[in-house]
Amino acid sequence: MKVIINRDKLMESIQHVTKAISSKTAVPILSGLKIHAKETGIKLTGSNSDITIESFIPLEEEGIQYIDEIEQGEIIVHAKYFPEIIRKSPKDTVKIESDEQLQVTIQSGHAEFHLNGQDPEEYPQINQIQTDASFELPITLLKNMIKQTVFAVSTSETRPILTGVNIRAEDGQLKFVATDSHRLAASNVPLETEFSNFPTSQVVIPGKSLNELSKILDDTDEKIQISITDNQIAFQTEYLYFLSRLLDGKYPETSRLIPEESKTVIHANTKQLLQAVDRASLLAKDNHNNVIRLQTNNDQTIEISSNSPEIGKVEEELTVESIDGEELKISFSSKYMIDALKIMETDNVKIEFTGAMRPFIIKPTEHDQLLQLILPVRTF
Amino acid sequence: MKVIINRDKLMESIQHVTKAISSKTAVPILSGLKIHAKETGIKLTGSNSDITIESFIPLEEEGIQYIDEIEQGEIIVHAKYFPEIIRKSPKDTVKIESDEQLQVTIQSGHAEFHLNGQDPEEYPQINQIQTDASFELPITLLKNMIKQTVFAVSTSETRPILTGVNIRAEDGQLKFVATDSHRLAASNVPLETEFSNFPTSQVVIPGKSLNELSKILDDTDEKIQISITDNQIAFQTEYLYFLSRLLDGKYPETSRLIPEESKTVIHANTKQLLQAVDRASLLAKDNHNNVIRLQTNNDQTIEISSNSPEIGKVEEELTVESIDGEELKISFSSKYMIDALKIMETDNVKIEFTGAMRPFIIKPTEHDQLLQLILPVRTF
Repeated sequence: MKVIINRDKLMESIQHVTKAISSKTAVPILSGLKIHAKETGIKLTGSNSDITIESFIPLEEEGIQYIDEIEQGEIIVHAKYFPEIIRKSPKDTVKIESDEQLQVTIQSGHAEFHLNGQDPEEYPQINQIQTDASFELPITLLKNMIKQTVFAVSTSETRPILTGVNIRAEDGQLKFVATDSHRLAASNVPLETEFSNFPTSQVVIPGKSLNELSKILDDTDEKIQISITDNQIAFQTEYLYFLSRLLDGKYPETSRLIPEESKTVIHANTKQLLQAVDRASLLAKDNHNNVIRLQTNNDQTIEISSNSPEIGKVEEELTVESIDGEELKISFSSKYMIDALKIMETDNVKIEFTGAMRPFIIKPTEHDQLLQLILPVRTF
Repeated sequence: MKVIINRDKLMESIQHVTKAISSKTAVPILSGLKIHAKETGIKLTGSNSDITIESFIPLEEEGIQYIDEIEQGEIIVHAKYFPEIIRKSPKDTVKIESDEQLQVTIQSGHAEFHLNGQDPEEYPQINQIQTDASFELPITLLKNMIKQTVFAVSTSETRPILTGVNIRAEDGQLKFVATDSHRLAASNVPLETEFSNFPTSQVVIPGKSLNELSKILDDTDEKIQISITDNQIAFQTEYLYFLSRLLDGKYPETSRLIPEESKTVIHANTKQLLQAVDRASLLAKDNHNNVIRLQTNNDQTIEISSNSPEIGKVEEELTVESIDGEELKISFSSKYMIDALKIMETDNVKIEFTGAMRPFIIKPTEHDQLLQLILPVRTF
């Protein structure tokens, strides 16, 4: 194998695929990075037991020449040293060459590196998944839906299924939902076309996979193709192939959790509310659950407070847009509230309560595509 | 005590004094931050067993009003929560008030915090040190001398005296020197005036103190006053007072270590050499001592290389400005070389060798105020 390639373009691809590479792997060869030089360009691969990422660099793109010379072949390089060597190359182009003894020579300017490579034959075969169940989404939309839900997945392995985001296509909508059983985040968007071939089985993607995917994808309006089988999901753009396993198990029925009526409704400025909750949380941090209180007043204000007897207490009065319905005193985790308010893109939010001991809902005032639910804590 | 004060100015002072505050202290009251409101402004104090930092905020400075209202008094506040509360205050000014029950009320906009304070009577008295041995330096010069030496102090407590920077005034020069016994860094500047009262005892300042001082000082040409007693050193500007203990013990005589003659002299471009050494170090990192090799060639080039049999090897040929004297093959720690080259401000450096097993010297080509010495490693 031999390739003379643009350093920065190669570095970008390396950064994508190394997101899937772990030095702690049960399969030693997977701690390496695979380089596959073809006639049309080079493909890099990184993989672990959960995800596989492939990034392709074409000979040229939109008139920009990335690769000057190429001879076909494959090699596995050290995923710790190879990226550092490329990053610190003195010139804009690097020459990478491997021989039959699996020796890899990397040359740039007057610097010459010789790395011990590994046999590409030992690297597991990555098959593109075959399925009719595939659809397209704009990348910005996908990233947004991930951002609005993935923070709410469980970080505990007690119920592994809750560490993933559940994806469904129903009622003409694509639905993402995540819950750790104390709070829930849901994002729904109308489907442009009917997905008649969406899997009937449950699709639950590990939250970690979605976080990594989000980091790799640029914010563009280009579309990404999503294909699903019983146990895998693939995200594909022109030069990127991202494959994740799906979580096994039954995802809980979450729609029943969402109250259909409400007794107290508050409209508030998102940013003001977020900052007041953040301040109240300052003295609530050392409580393991960050509990703060919210209380409605008669004069279109709410009071947000917390109390840690050993340290001190905080009280803040916040003027809101409106308060309708019953008086309310409720306690909840400031962390969950901060997480929920941070991903609201609208200036104002609507909070719907059905009593101090019932879950409450936070929504944008302008639309219904986003819903956050938080379970209160009993303190009053 | 009561004060209505500009939030950002207060925050700046808090950030300075908290550098001296540790939550792990043998004297519990020192985990707090002291606020002392006087007629002329407020003084904040943070302290641990090594350093004490005082920062003063005057009522106004250069026409800018920092304090609107002040009532004299003292209080100790929680150094973890108080800074966070001020930082997240909703308005540009905050009101801080303490009562006889040591309750501290912090108010900004509609947010009101109540913190449990501590008794200022329990806080140790900080005395300004009394000495004739004091001199002034421009702040940028002091910061520069710290930067050029402090990285070379020892991080091991085997010989505690080596964890500090030795300061002397001799031969009409102010001299900073640091060594961990494997390398040495020295910075000398001509004295503007004679320091007849410079202490005859050894002055060794903990490296940690100098690092903290450097972080607090802005880069200005203003002067800082330095006062020294047998066991303490104070750095003072108009609004800052920084006090550090000195290290006890005998600092080694370092001047003998510096070779007076040389057998091989290389002039090289600082940046090119730094980058080549950095690249060679990539494959030498997992050796515990980062050893790389340097070899002179006959054609005004040097070869920098390293070899880790399990990973691979690297070789780079670097064209230098000149090579004079004997041929040379030498091995040394790339980390020490990188540290030394990073603080050279000049485009070119002069490296003076006296053989493969003798310490070598790195200097700027333009002047003699800066000297770095590195001990080689035996490999050839």
